[in-house]
Amino acid sequence: MTLQIDPSLHPFFNPKGIALIGASTDPNKLGYALARNLVQCNYQGELHFVNPKGGTLLGRKIYTHILEVPEPVDLAILLVPAITVPGLLRDVGRRGISAAIIGSGGFREVGPEGAALEEECVAIARKYHIRLLGPNCIGIMNTHLPLDATFLPPPPPRPGDVAFISQSGAILAAVIDWARGQDLGLSHLISLGNQADICETDVLAPVAADVHTNVLTLYLEGVRDGRRFVREASQVARLKPIVALKVGRFASGQRAVASHTGALAGRESAFNAAFWRAGVIRAETSEEMFDWARALAWCPLPKGRSIAILTSAGGPGVTAADALEINGMQLAELQLETVTCLKQILPAAASLLNPVDLLATATPEQYAASLQCLLRDDGVHGVLIILPPLPMQTAGAVAKALIPVIYSADKPVVIALMGERLIQEAIEHFRAAHIPEYRFPERAASALAILAERAEFLARPEEVPQIFEDVERERVEQLLAPYVKASPANLEGIALPTEVVIQILNAYRIPTQPAGLAKTKDEAAALAEKIGFPVAMKIASPAIAHKSDIGGVLLNVADPLSVAQGFEIIQRNAQQAHPDAEILGVHVQRMLPEGQDVIIGGIHDDQFGALVMFGSGGVEVEGLKDVAFALAPLTDHEANQILQKTWAGRKLSGYRNLSPADREATIIALKRLAQLVADFPQISEFEINPLRVMAPGEGVYAIDVRARVKA
Amino acid sequence: MTLQIDPSLHPFFNPKGIALIGASTDPNKLGYALARNLVQCNYQGELHFVNPKGGTLLGRKIYTHILEVPEPVDLAILLVPAITVPGLLRDVGRRGISAAIIGSGGFREVGPEGAALEEECVAIARKYHIRLLGPNCIGIMNTHLPLDATFLPPPPPRPGDVAFISQSGAILAAVIDWARGQDLGLSHLISLGNQADICETDVLAPVAADVHTNVLTLYLEGVRDGRRFVREASQVARLKPIVALKVGRFASGQRAVASHTGALAGRESAFNAAFWRAGVIRAETSEEMFDWARALAWCPLPKGRSIAILTSAGGPGVTAADALEINGMQLAELQLETVTCLKQILPAAASLLNPVDLLATATPEQYAASLQCLLRDDGVHGVLIILPPLPMQTAGAVAKALIPVIYSADKPVVIALMGERLIQEAIEHFRAAHIPEYRFPERAASALAILAERAEFLARPEEVPQIFEDVERERVEQLLAPYVKASPANLEGIALPTEVVIQILNAYRIPTQPAGLAKTKDEAAALAEKIGFPVAMKIASPAIAHKSDIGGVLLNVADPLSVAQGFEIIQRNAQQAHPDAEILGVHVQRMLPEGQDVIIGGIHDDQFGALVMFGSGGVEVEGLKDVAFALAPLTDHEANQILQKTWAGRKLSGYRNLSPADREATIIALKRLAQLVADFPQISEFEINPLRVMAPGEGVYAIDVRARVKA
Repeated sequence: MTLQIDPSLHPFFNPKGIALIGASTDPNKLGYALARNLVQCNYQGELHFVNPKGGTLLGRKIYTHILEVPEPVDLAILLVPAITVPGLLRDVGRRGISAAIIGSGGFREVGPEGAALEEECVAIARKYHIRLLGPNCIGIMNTHLPLDATFLPPPPPRPGDVAFISQSGAILAAVIDWARGQDLGLSHLISLGNQADICETDVLAPVAADVHTNVLTLYLEGVRDGRRFVREASQVARLKPIVALKVGRFASGQRAVASHTGALAGRESAFNAAFWRAGVIRAETSEEMFDWARALAWCPLPKGRSIAILTSAGGPGVTAADALEINGMQLAELQLETVTCLKQILPAAASLLNPVDLLATATPEQYAASLQCLLRDDGVHGVLIILPPLPMQTAGAVAKALIPVIYSADKPVVIALMGERLIQEAIEHFRAAHIPEYRFPERAASALAILAERAEFLARPEEVPQIFEDVERERVEQLLAPYVKASPANLEGIALPTEVVIQILNAYRIPTQPAGLAKTKDEAAALAEKIGFPVAMKIASPAIAHKSDIGGVLLNVADPLSVAQGFEIIQRNAQQAHPDAEILGVHVQRMLPEGQDVIIGGIHDDQFGALVMFGSGGVEVEGLKDVAFALAPLTDHEANQILQKTWAGRKLSGYRNLSPADREATIIALKRLAQLVADFPQISEFEINPLRVMAPGEGVYAIDVRARVKA
Repeated sequence: MTLQIDPSLHPFFNPKGIALIGASTDPNKLGYALARNLVQCNYQGELHFVNPKGGTLLGRKIYTHILEVPEPVDLAILLVPAITVPGLLRDVGRRGISAAIIGSGGFREVGPEGAALEEECVAIARKYHIRLLGPNCIGIMNTHLPLDATFLPPPPPRPGDVAFISQSGAILAAVIDWARGQDLGLSHLISLGNQADICETDVLAPVAADVHTNVLTLYLEGVRDGRRFVREASQVARLKPIVALKVGRFASGQRAVASHTGALAGRESAFNAAFWRAGVIRAETSEEMFDWARALAWCPLPKGRSIAILTSAGGPGVTAADALEINGMQLAELQLETVTCLKQILPAAASLLNPVDLLATATPEQYAASLQCLLRDDGVHGVLIILPPLPMQTAGAVAKALIPVIYSADKPVVIALMGERLIQEAIEHFRAAHIPEYRFPERAASALAILAERAEFLARPEEVPQIFEDVERERVEQLLAPYVKASPANLEGIALPTEVVIQILNAYRIPTQPAGLAKTKDEAAALAEKIGFPVAMKIASPAIAHKSDIGGVLLNVADPLSVAQGFEIIQRNAQQAHPDAEILGVHVQRMLPEGQDVIIGGIHDDQFGALVMFGSGGVEVEGLKDVAFALAPLTDHEANQILQKTWAGRKLSGYRNLSPADREATIIALKRLAQLVADFPQISEFEINPLRVMAPGEGVYAIDVRARVKA
């Protein structure tokens, strides 16, 4: 697979010539620091400094105007007061330069005046076809080109294979300093700043296309266009792993919601669903992100989740075994030949079961030979080696013996090097050999789990969502139109009458139970006779969302007289609870036999568009929180997975004396609902709760439904 | 509160004279390394070396026999081949020394022969009243005494205020090396080895009594006597915090269980319940344990969970806000005076809301003055300061400005120092000032959360479990006796007949529904008439655990004829499913009105004794896993908390259109069940599922019950 790279971004990744506008001879200015880094970084293209004061800087001429700068120059860097940026950007355009980094602050981040200035820049850039990075950014680094177009204090990080793309300049600066301390090599570093033009999604493909980059790491506070991010990230992630630290988890604020689906969704569910579809690995902390990045950059992927632990001490072996299980991995059961192989190497008191314990007398040769035995075992998909301080051997000697074995392995091997000072030499050996080492077994175990997750993602079929052709799309369009029109903008939209929701379900072939709307008690009795007893009765009022809360529901009504009486009771209850609500009558539905009740719902997320939810339904859905989300429409794999993520979905296959239910029909209903919410962005929330799942082969029925539309 | 210290342990903590048996002049031997450490550590007591070869070592005489060693000597250290230990230990006893550390390996850890040798040592120690540490241990360190009685390579860790007690020698060695690298000071280090005599519980009080120790950290693979551990740890934790890393989470293996409670319990639930009662803080990783230990050792405790974030960059501020919320903390809402105070200090573009963002131009003075404003705010219970690399200031200068303000604060302040090389000076300042600093905001946030947890533990009332006096203990004893007698040892015990379980419930005043046992269909019909219709009918057979699985249950049986027919149906189903099962008849029970169904259960854990469980009941209990455990008997606080931990418990107070239920009666039933399982260790499992909770004031009823006893 090859990635589509936008050619207008090339100057940011391989500029032929750079002009720094705002180069300064004052060593206390950022314009000096950036000039110094450009010169010192050994950049092989042309460098031009621009400052109206002229003069020389670091042995080079300073041009007084960008228009004077000779060819080649395809990237301008502006580090000047914000107020002067628009004018200078215009000059950049006139000079025919089509890429600019605006390092200066003082734009959108400082308030409305800055925002206006930023918009002016965007307009100028559009007019002159300039691509912009920033403003308010630290710049870019490419350690292999090499290029250091930042104003950070030297030295830059070591060249390596992990790229870091950041929506926070401070985090970028901290990561560079931290990576230097950890001796972690980096490839590309991109500070996105205010993202007036280029955003996180734009740079994914160009960074992934770089041969030196094995892993992309992202610090994200949000994404500009959710669906575009998912599309781009999906493509990139098939080629190279993406690990993202997404923050701003709780910043979404409260919005009024009318359904369980809406209350449970929130922005984080959407991000998780998007990352899941795209194969983006979500880290919870910065340390996790780089722990995982090293393993992803350097290790072959495992064929499964069975791991062998090789240790010379029992305690850390137990810790590692725990950590593996917490991370969803398991201890491999060693084959007989493996145990025999180990027996020939190790003393009698050693433990030959997994974890394999070499004892404190372990030699470098025993470590290496035991690892060889373990790697030959087909049931072992990866090895976690624990290296505590040994009384008689240096960790460095053990590292030297292990490295050739790990090098020739086609299975991942990670190291928990325990301690700090006594293991420095070993750390250096492993780092130089690109073998991931961690200070504690827990972190090594979590890295192995991520390798397994990555392998599973790559094995996931590249399906397209199933689209049902038998749906009546125009019919739904017509049904929605009057309500969309009536819905006030900027609000939560308006609820659809139940009978409209049912017609929509019919149009998308999602089964509902036999039912009708009665306007009088006599109509209700007649309808019930037609549908067949017993029936359920529910108040019909778009203003009343949770009908059973106010006595608006009667179940198991068995004869015409009771139906007529029930009609009056329900009307009275509803009027008392909501005196101003418009009441359309009472829905009469056939009571269905028992089954498994689930909730399926869809919402329209502002960032990622249509999402579906599946889980344990009923009134307790918000309490149990047994729900999972996915982007709509759904592939077959996704529909199956979303079921497996919840207890509600797992138990559809039966559990103890709970009979199995119609899992297939549930999946079809879920996919049809996904298609519906994906087809109609005007549907802000759509919920079937419960969806009654009958015995296998007997289908599903939407029992209670609600939906809202928005202009 | 003062701790009770066992005087026989004094020689381990403050020996007057030490004899090293097995001192060696060969620098490659551990007997040399230990002698060297004893000499070099600046120990102020007397040191005596013993080796049958005699000679001198490090300028001191080597005695050929322990009996020759002059006074004072109250601690012997044996580092000799295992086979010679019993004889030498006997000599130690004859010499009148009552404390010994056996460093040698070759005991229980190597197999049955070693175990026999270990038992011999224990017998000798008992005879001569010698307390033993080890065998197979690394020894002890006390950095303040000072004493280094280990054979680890020098230098020892820096003196500090965190003690570390370890059941793994390798982990102890790794932690010492790691702590040196991290410049973390330690007070006591104790390697427990095989724990032939002294175990983890024994050393808690003596370590806590040390004035230099502020926090105890433990590496645990298990505890010897669960209830004793809880008693001791509870006392100690009131005085000084205990943080434990408990591993071996998944090592418990599978045991056959007959009830949901049994299946869900497992060893980890027992440990969590025990730690919870004792106030022991459970860390998930080694890094967490020491991250938390530093905060606990150095910070005042917060009065609540509202935190202010002080940062000079937006990105890490968002990360920190997320991390606080994930850890159950919240962002403080700043008072108007605080905002006014900040406004006077900071530039116009700074963010004065929480997180307070000083911007990248922040000066050391602005950091310090802003912190002062925040600390004066009564709504701020603690402050998380983020210090990313600043373009114009060194982190060291900011640290120097902040330290005096933090010093005089009575609220906790923790630092996220981001980066690595540029912040080295700041790290050193903060460490020297005993202010906890972390590389990432996530870890700083989790440390603040632990301080809040500690404060809440200390505020928890010191209640004793409520004991009901109206129970008939002797009656239960009599009821259980025949079954306990009949139960085969070493097995899962035997199930009690339902009517016996009901009698036990009656004896402990836990309400059951009106019911009886019918042996014939006519008896069943007559019984139903007496109880009142409708009734439920259930097969009575101790061999059938899950009655509804095999068609052994009928509900809502409405008249005598149906009861008689039902009797025959149930009998037939049970005989078909379990042809060999003894069938005693059919239980007939009054059907109860609807309510909230919960599960309450009790089990006897091998390590911690009686445990109770509460949660969502029904057949799905193992799928939903909405359960919580506590040690029995229960205090009022614990009973309330265990309810709050589960959705089943929270919804007892009502939720939306789910009516509230009788929470008080549920708590009483739970406490009575806890008392029952605590009173009778022979009850291995006892489960009420469901317990039907009626409307407030209308009580609870045990609907279905099962119990097993064991000899």
